[in-house]
Amino acid sequence: MPTATSASLKESSMKIAVFGASGTLGRAVVERLGQHHDIISIGRTSGDYRADLTDIASIRTVLEKIGPLDALIATAGQLHFGPLAETTPEQFQIGLNDKLLGQVNLVLAGQHHLNDGGSITLTSGIVSDEPIRNGSNATTVNAALEGFVRAAALELPRGLRVNVVSPNVVVESWKDYGPLFPGVEAVPVARVALAYQRSVEGIQSGRVLRVW
Amino acid sequence: MPTATSASLKESSMKIAVFGASGTLGRAVVERLGQHHDIISIGRTSGDYRADLTDIASIRTVLEKIGPLDALIATAGQLHFGPLAETTPEQFQIGLNDKLLGQVNLVLAGQHHLNDGGSITLTSGIVSDEPIRNGSNATTVNAALEGFVRAAALELPRGLRVNVVSPNVVVESWKDYGPLFPGVEAVPVARVALAYQRSVEGIQSGRVLRVW
Ligand SMILES: NC(=O)c1ccc[n+]([C@@H]2O[C@H](COP(=O)([O-])OP(=O)(O)OC[C@H]3O[C@@H](n4cnc5c(N)ncnc54)[C@H](OP(=O)(O)O)[C@@H]3O)[C@@H](O)[C@H]2O)c1
Ligand SMILES: NC(=O)c1ccc[n+]([C@@H]2O[C@H](COP(=O)([O-])OP(=O)(O)OC[C@H]3O[C@@H](n4cnc5c(N)ncnc54)[C@H](OP(=O)(O)O)[C@@H]3O)[C@@H](O)[C@H]2O)c1
Repeated sequence: MPTATSASLKESSMKIAVFGASGTLGRAVVERLGQHHDIISIGRTSGDYRADLTDIASIRTVLEKIGPLDALIATAGQLHFGPLAETTPEQFQIGLNDKLLGQVNLVLAGQHHLNDGGSITLTSGIVSDEPIRNGSNATTVNAALEGFVRAAALELPRGLRVNVVSPNVVVESWKDYGPLFPGVEAVPVARVALAYQRSVEGIQSGRVLRVW
Repeated sequence: MPTATSASLKESSMKIAVFGASGTLGRAVVERLGQHHDIISIGRTSGDYRADLTDIASIRTVLEKIGPLDALIATAGQLHFGPLAETTPEQFQIGLNDKLLGQVNLVLAGQHHLNDGGSITLTSGIVSDEPIRNGSNATTVNAALEGFVRAAALELPRGLRVNVVSPNVVVESWKDYGPLFPGVEAVPVARVALAYQRSVEGIQSGRVLRVW
């Protein structure tokens, strides 16, 4: 049986941009990946650089400033929560334009700024598989993101990869989201951060990494 | 063993509106369901009534004119096909605003115009599960529709149901779509029409009815 040497186990340090780095998920991802990698934090109003995922030009501008990267991560995206019976098309578009198209934009722009073998990791959520009351927009958007990575992974050139992490509600957000998720066992955000590491340092592509 | 009587097997006649009735899928659905039901055909430029699924006000206007219905069907919706490397957000929005939000609009408006126990049947496509080259927008939109019915089915009141039919490429559209689907075994559109009958006359809800 071959023995794993420390050289074959050690990932060399990567340059990683995290869009949404100041958020609940983002901070945990930065803490985890920052131990071994060079992290660039990005947000609309916070971080090393400013960009809005819903504005592809702002993503391109920032990526050009930063130069070639090994990994891109998005931990950002707004959804609409509300009763299906009262939902308007405008409310439904919140999730489509923000969480869905925002993260799609990161792939559309980001694919051209990654080194060979680089990765993009997006964020969906448990509501894709486990619908909740008032969550039709969230299930739709999260399912869409999971479809998108399934397809995009197969078209990306140069060994580029794309995955999506589907977190359960995290303990650290329970005060905000708990009421929407009766009986759900929240997970510590540090567990969710591991899935981003798995996507960035692993070899899989087109996958949904569930943390439930 | 109980014996099925002809009365228990026979579905009573329903009033059904088909959005996209003049299309390749729509014509087959009308032919199939028209044998036992009262069909109202709807399109932007064709049919008994005119409505544009991307304009919820036009859907509401038509549904108010028609009065209470037993089933709503959508066999319409545009997608963008093109290389991921060159896709723009504007191109990606074609599928989001047309095929996805158009059919979501039918549910948002239609839920208030159905008789108790009525159904809505939408249309996705095989590309949700089997991505093709240049098809990232199609996989995303079809997966989103499948997520949407999964969630919406659980919130609909009064025994209302919603499903989505996922057709393979149909033989009758092979000249248009064949080049995108090398090695795919197209199915006769009459087989696809059966799945709409299964959704309308059956009891399932929140389901993806695949015809491959
Ligand atoms: N928290 C949970 O329990 C949980 C569970 C499952 C899924 N999720 C999903 O994970 C994502 C992040 O959740 P979170 O709770 O970590 O959110 P959060 O705490 O509100 O953080 C969001 C972060 O994203 C940035 N941001 C927001 N919109 C942006 C945009 N358009 N462009 C660039 N950056 C943007 C924000 O900073 P700026 O304000 O400076 O832009 C902030 O850093 C959401 O999509 C959520 O649906 C969360
Ligand atoms: N054909 C296939 O092999 C196949 C396979 C899998 C999935 N699909 C999906 O099935 C759907 C229908 O495909 P198809 O080939 O039957 O299309 P089609 O032949 O082009 O027919 C589309 C029909 O929808 C109507 N329509 C288009 N946009 C509309 C809108 N915004 N509002 C209301 N009516 C509208 C059109 O009539 P007007 O022009 O009068 O509006 C027409 O009756 C598409 O979403 C397609 O992706 C098709």
